[in-house]
Amino acid sequence: MKLFTYPGAPNPRRVHMYLAEKGIEIPFERVDIMKRENRSPEFMADINAMGGVPVLELDDGSHIAESIAICRYLETLHPTPSLFGASAQEVGLVEMWIRRIELYLMMPVGMVWVHGSPLTKAVVKQQIPEMAELNREMVKNYFGFIDRRLAKSAYLAGDHFSMADITALCTMDFAATLNGLPHSKEQVYLSRWYEEVSGRPSAQEK
Amino acid sequence: MKLFTYPGAPNPRRVHMYLAEKGIEIPFERVDIMKRENRSPEFMADINAMGGVPVLELDDGSHIAESIAICRYLETLHPTPSLFGASAQEVGLVEMWIRRIELYLMMPVGMVWVHGSPLTKAVVKQQIPEMAELNREMVKNYFGFIDRRLAKSAYLAGDHFSMADITALCTMDFAATLNGLPHSKEQVYLSRWYEEVSGRPSAQEK
Repeated sequence: MKLFTYPGAPNPRRVHMYLAEKGIEIPFERVDIMKRENRSPEFMADINAMGGVPVLELDDGSHIAESIAICRYLETLHPTPSLFGASAQEVGLVEMWIRRIELYLMMPVGMVWVHGSPLTKAVVKQQIPEMAELNREMVKNYFGFIDRRLAKSAYLAGDHFSMADITALCTMDFAATLNGLPHSKEQVYLSRWYEEVSGRPSAQEK
Repeated sequence: MKLFTYPGAPNPRRVHMYLAEKGIEIPFERVDIMKRENRSPEFMADINAMGGVPVLELDDGSHIAESIAICRYLETLHPTPSLFGASAQEVGLVEMWIRRIELYLMMPVGMVWVHGSPLTKAVVKQQIPEMAELNREMVKNYFGFIDRRLAKSAYLAGDHFSMADITALCTMDFAATLNGLPHSKEQVYLSRWYEEVSGRPSAQEK
């Protein structure tokens, strides 16, 4: 197995943090997305037709792309400690929270990045600055929603740390690099969770 | 168990089609999203704080929202016939294709709907017509991508019908209702797949 990745970007970080939590070691090959190596004809023909990283290459030479798909593949091979839920109810709740974080936090953060960052201007088809502003508000509102959730449970999906927490942390750390998008210290439940999750050894994977 | 749902909308349809494929029957309660019943204070306080349907109510009174989370919960209780993959590799590939369809087809179709439909104008914070146009192009391009994929395999994730196919069909049927967004008959592999999947008894769930 081999992981094509770009350590430092939020999606690759989700997988690296997952691997660290599970104690799984996989050799990796760095694909420089700032040099657009992930968009080379060879990469897109042989490794991932969508041109994204991370991608896991299996021993038979086939590939699995999309961060959560890679982690679910590994979770099936290494079920414990569970990061996708042990009981049926936990499985449902972890998936619900992964999706809520992706849909209502990661996607808007991505829109702020794609439509508002000077770094993406040269590579996207069209930037729509209004879209960045609209989504900036959505992100701020959603931090409030997460804060209210974390008033009621230790982690997003309940009592156990899960892939949903990994997804939220990687998204928040990326959002904080976009002018004016950190969470507020007044969000005390979110701040408590953020401090604790940021202190896990796996969170040092950047 | 009880399913809060609005038969006819694309996300509820994913769950109804999944239930039909699995042969699972769950009583349901209709929540009229056109009358915004899903945004009532009671619904958001007691059932789904995000105000979406479908939502599954478990026997202990707790709730699981998000279509795929509901289906994964049920899949854990009823593993066969598998719609999320049997082997680890299949699990990874089904998840990859669910996510590709959601990210590159369902999300852009949603943007066309949110930012371009007269029906949503009254309920969204702001419509950005340029965003609808940009995403309309993304949808058309992605139909080409799926066509090339289906030149090489019977179903999206490989030899077996899966949740990825359900997600794609429900998205395509919804896209076709948005002015000028059906796939092209010249996309012969996509058309072959579309005819076959549309003919399944479960696809009659609308």
